[in-house]
Amino acid sequence: MEHNYHTVRTDLALEAREVLTRQVHEDIPGVLVETSEDDDVIITRVNVTTPEAEKMMGKMQGKYITIEAPGLRYKNTPLQQKVMNFLANELVEMVKLPRDATVLVVGLGNWNVTPDALGPRAAQKIVVTRHLQEMLSPELKGGVRSVCAITPGVLGITGMETGEIIQGIVSKISPNLVLAIDALAAASSQRVITTVQLANTGIHPGSGVGNKRFGLTQASLGVPVVAIGVPTVVHASTIAMDTINTLQEHAAFARYFKSMSSLSDQDRHTIVRQVLPEMLGDLMVTPKEVDRLIEDIAAVVAGGINQAMHPNIDYENIHMYLH
Amino acid sequence: MEHNYHTVRTDLALEAREVLTRQVHEDIPGVLVETSEDDDVIITRVNVTTPEAEKMMGKMQGKYITIEAPGLRYKNTPLQQKVMNFLANELVEMVKLPRDATVLVVGLGNWNVTPDALGPRAAQKIVVTRHLQEMLSPELKGGVRSVCAITPGVLGITGMETGEIIQGIVSKISPNLVLAIDALAAASSQRVITTVQLANTGIHPGSGVGNKRFGLTQASLGVPVVAIGVPTVVHASTIAMDTINTLQEHAAFARYFKSMSSLSDQDRHTIVRQVLPEMLGDLMVTPKEVDRLIEDIAAVVAGGINQAMHPNIDYENIHMYLH
Amino acid sequence: MEHNYHTVRTDLALEAREVLTRQVHEDIPGVLVETSEDDDVIITRVNVTTPEAEKMMGKMQGKYITIEAPGLRYKNTPLQQKVMNFLANELVEMVKLPRDATVLVVGLGNWNVTPDALGPRAAQKIVVTRHLQEMLSPELKGGVRSVCAITPGVLGITGMETGEIIQGIVSKISPNLVLAIDALAAASSQRVITTVQLANTGIHPGSGVGNKRFGLTQASLGVPVVAIGVPTVVHASTIAMDTINTLQEHAAFARYFKSMSSLSDQDRHTIVRQVLPEMLGDLMVTPKEVDRLIEDIAAVVAGGINQAMHPNIDYENIHMYLH
Amino acid sequence: MEHNYHTVRTDLALEAREVLTRQVHEDIPGVLVETSEDDDVIITRVNVTTPEAEKMMGKMQGKYITIEAPGLRYKNTPLQQKVMNFLANELVEMVKLPRDATVLVVGLGNWNVTPDALGPRAAQKIVVTRHLQEMLSPELKGGVRSVCAITPGVLGITGMETGEIIQGIVSKISPNLVLAIDALAAASSQRVITTVQLANTGIHPGSGVGNKRFGLTQASLGVPVVAIGVPTVVHASTIAMDTINTLQEHAAFARYFKSMSSLSDQDRHTIVRQVLPEMLGDLMVTPKEVDRLIEDIAAVVAGGINQAMHPNIDYENIHMYLH
Repeated sequence: MEHNYHTVRTDLALEAREVLTRQVHEDIPGVLVETSEDDDVIITRVNVTTPEAEKMMGKMQGKYITIEAPGLRYKNTPLQQKVMNFLANELVEMVKLPRDATVLVVGLGNWNVTPDALGPRAAQKIVVTRHLQEMLSPELKGGVRSVCAITPGVLGITGMETGEIIQGIVSKISPNLVLAIDALAAASSQRVITTVQLANTGIHPGSGVGNKRFGLTQASLGVPVVAIGVPTVVHASTIAMDTINTLQEHAAFARYFKSMSSLSDQDRHTIVRQVLPEMLGDLMVTPKEVDRLIEDIAAVVAGGINQAMHPNIDYENIHMYLH
Repeated sequence: MEHNYHTVRTDLALEAREVLTRQVHEDIPGVLVETSEDDDVIITRVNVTTPEAEKMMGKMQGKYITIEAPGLRYKNTPLQQKVMNFLANELVEMVKLPRDATVLVVGLGNWNVTPDALGPRAAQKIVVTRHLQEMLSPELKGGVRSVCAITPGVLGITGMETGEIIQGIVSKISPNLVLAIDALAAASSQRVITTVQLANTGIHPGSGVGNKRFGLTQASLGVPVVAIGVPTVVHASTIAMDTINTLQEHAAFARYFKSMSSLSDQDRHTIVRQVLPEMLGDLMVTPKEVDRLIEDIAAVVAGGINQAMHPNIDYENIHMYLH
Repeated sequence: MEHNYHTVRTDLALEAREVLTRQVHEDIPGVLVETSEDDDVIITRVNVTTPEAEKMMGKMQGKYITIEAPGLRYKNTPLQQKVMNFLANELVEMVKLPRDATVLVVGLGNWNVTPDALGPRAAQKIVVTRHLQEMLSPELKGGVRSVCAITPGVLGITGMETGEIIQGIVSKISPNLVLAIDALAAASSQRVITTVQLANTGIHPGSGVGNKRFGLTQASLGVPVVAIGVPTVVHASTIAMDTINTLQEHAAFARYFKSMSSLSDQDRHTIVRQVLPEMLGDLMVTPKEVDRLIEDIAAVVAGGINQAMHPNIDYENIHMYLH
Repeated sequence: MEHNYHTVRTDLALEAREVLTRQVHEDIPGVLVETSEDDDVIITRVNVTTPEAEKMMGKMQGKYITIEAPGLRYKNTPLQQKVMNFLANELVEMVKLPRDATVLVVGLGNWNVTPDALGPRAAQKIVVTRHLQEMLSPELKGGVRSVCAITPGVLGITGMETGEIIQGIVSKISPNLVLAIDALAAASSQRVITTVQLANTGIHPGSGVGNKRFGLTQASLGVPVVAIGVPTVVHASTIAMDTINTLQEHAAFARYFKSMSSLSDQDRHTIVRQVLPEMLGDLMVTPKEVDRLIEDIAAVVAGGINQAMHPNIDYENIHMYLH
């Protein structure tokens, strides 16, 4: 079952569960799900609570919160503000951080590859304050936590595992929390750039657009790690897989088939390799306007983090804190 | 038949013919094809010679030359140089330009959308010389044609049809030839960024990554227009269509079907709409490293044009001409 | 006297008059000046009314309005909004444009050279609407003029004089007004990026950061041309000249000199050539943060133009018009 | 004397000595100088050997090697190659690194501020290999050292001192050598972008374009630190100071003065504050084309480092190592 899931590659716990549910036709034991929604936004909380659920889902035990707002695909300032607020609230709730905590924000991904540049671009928009702590007046200090930020780059650019770099910095800076921002792959094209996922599980090897070989977790860093991700791509192979699934599952097409439901995993792969020869993993499906969309969603993510970290900051005078 | 073709969207005459041939299982009357190849490069010349062929192919009457070099996907300086040389030779042959001709290079597309930025990026690398003509010594002049270049932007940025802008400039500058560079859509992911197409037909409405509403043709501009294009994307819907076609055409899968060959156009569209709901036209399949790949292929295209236009330029001292 | 002025190079009529007044120690005949100011902003109107004044000032006959806001050097949203409003008001007053007019905005300068990129960056932020005129409802149309925009590039990039390109487009589009945005050189470092100049005289050869050889004027284009400029640099030679002037004019230093007031023009040039050998014209004085500052002031300039051109646009839904 | 020197701000030991020599009219005790030159390139070795010399020069004890090539101001591939070779040779000589050493390259400076972006841009062009060591065949390994690279960002972007970040990474990675690349300020406009300085002293607080508060030295990091810098700016105040010096020192102007040689430091500052009010430290003199020039010199610096670190690399197949 696990390998089936892997053929539809997704970094969203929400989608891993959707795929799995469609396959097993029942609830997954050990996976708790809760949904709330209004006109524009759906919030889903997926809680993976057992080792068995972790294995079936291919997602580490922990809490995954997804904020979906399909309208983000179109420039829409009030909706962006709303998602920013939701993200700030969920983040505050998840991390329960004391006032005097120090937070290290890590912008993962490759700034030279647009769909992988979400982390670096969001990190640039973080209001960093750690170096100003001595200069801040007591009343300002009340609303401004000590925040610092780094965009470490990727293995091919640095020659170092991101995990090594962050371990080194964490051991020097001793933050209370690491917030890791990363671009994700979705299974569904509709979730691309319209969805933000928070997870208290950190970053795991193989996740994200950039095929990480390392992890950033409480186990590896010694401090809690919250991952904030936005899907920016769908793997091209997912489109092919989805097409086969649709053919197979859609009642209207049943008349064409003798026995489509028994199409083996190997046959599926043969088809995908035929359609997408050679470069299976390299092809990404993105919206044509991905450059602008990433810039906009990076501002939403950074805005949510800024609001959660600096609850009483004077945003009229925010330029005082900005580089 | 024509509508079937349109479901696999391609700007390459080569691919339009491939798709058509697969459907009609015979040669297309009025379409002449000639191929030559070596280890790295395949050159195909497609000549659409009759109005009937034009209608079947969905490609204007004229000559289409395709230079395919799959190795361009990987950084490879000697192969880039080779493709540059082939492009220069084909271009010289196609345009048969007198020494004292003036050429206007037009870099089509949107510089803010990476896969559509090929034209602007290539135009930036053109050795422009029109403003230096008076200053050039007679011997230099022999190898340096009068070349100028413009990147007009797209309708949403300028509020003007590109056709209007170029008509205005052509009427003022009176070039002997317009060379229009544009990013294209391919049907096959393997041709993305590995293929250059030359056509003596100009640019037609609806072609390219950016969905043009205008044309740039000898009819509209009053001077010959040669189009030079590189596919930078595959429409996501093409991947879905291809998957269906593969299922259907691959003998190995025959056992699954009662009557797959009769899958109607409408059914195909139902599937694609299911897999890619709503935003059918906006989703593009590109290599993850598209930013770097576009930069490299833009240099190949510009290099080929520079070589064709300025046969005896001293490339050691080329910086003398460069901005 | 004229050559003295030229040694302090400035594109601001305001500064040309300051320099001249300091030299002749009296009002310049034929130059009318009017000033109004509040806490943050000084508006100066310089009117060059006679051919003699034009010659003395080195500025064409016509009206020059300067909006100075020293606080723009620091990120300050309310002040940016205020300058935007002033600019919109002055522009409306200067052009007195009918509702159904078509306006062509021209972003002059080289996008590859940061201090010269003001025009291209501002033009990108213009709300272009010419292509939407047929689609707009009558009530929307009331507040939205037909605006189009072009960033033609510079001679070294295009091989064409900007004047030729704009003449070609104007003859095709027939706008009622051309608005040309350009980066300027100031004499005083305090005016860099803090000052906007409007002039109803168009653009003259030799002005701006990019050393134009052409003009964009009513005479050359057949339609009124308003120039909107922001100084982004001071020529390095101006700093040297200013140092000499300060030494000479400051009473405190009189004791050092025998006869400093008689320092000849030739001696001044000898000194400047000594301090800035060889590359006199290429060295620019800019604020270190020029990249960010240009982005901000480009938004102010574009915002002022948008507001003047589209008085009743619904800025909440402005994204409907944006690329 | 020291304060006089500081009014002409320079990060080049070569220039610190020139200024000092001009003031004291004799050799500086404890400063050894050696020069060799050919038609295009001057190499100067300045050795600060005593604590007294360190104090007078305002430069730490150690070796400073300057490679000057005025022709680099113009695009010139053979000269770029030549400077690259000289840089590689001097670097090899200075560091005497074993084959199996690991080297950490640090690209200092702010990537958002063009004249401060030399470090980040050069670091991007470094051939990093540390992550490939296990995969390299023994013969390849012979010519390829273990190199990694980081661009940490600046205090205002990260909220962390660069020194803290690098200490953290060094403690994790344990390199044998740190190579820190940084943009510098020169006293003379002619040295901007035409000069490369190597120093075995590391980076000291207050040096560089970005006003560092930290140091990167053997004392702070526990491993040798070599600094490689290129001047990209002259402080605007230096132009004013130079103008005064020229007036004063040039025999031709003696006739104007009673007692110019006695112009006090305070008077000099009064003049500079008059010419460059308020924002003394923020104004930079750079060549207009600084964006392109930084890109070119970053390639020279990175090329020299690559050649020194990887003496036998196969540059035909260098793409195998590149991201």
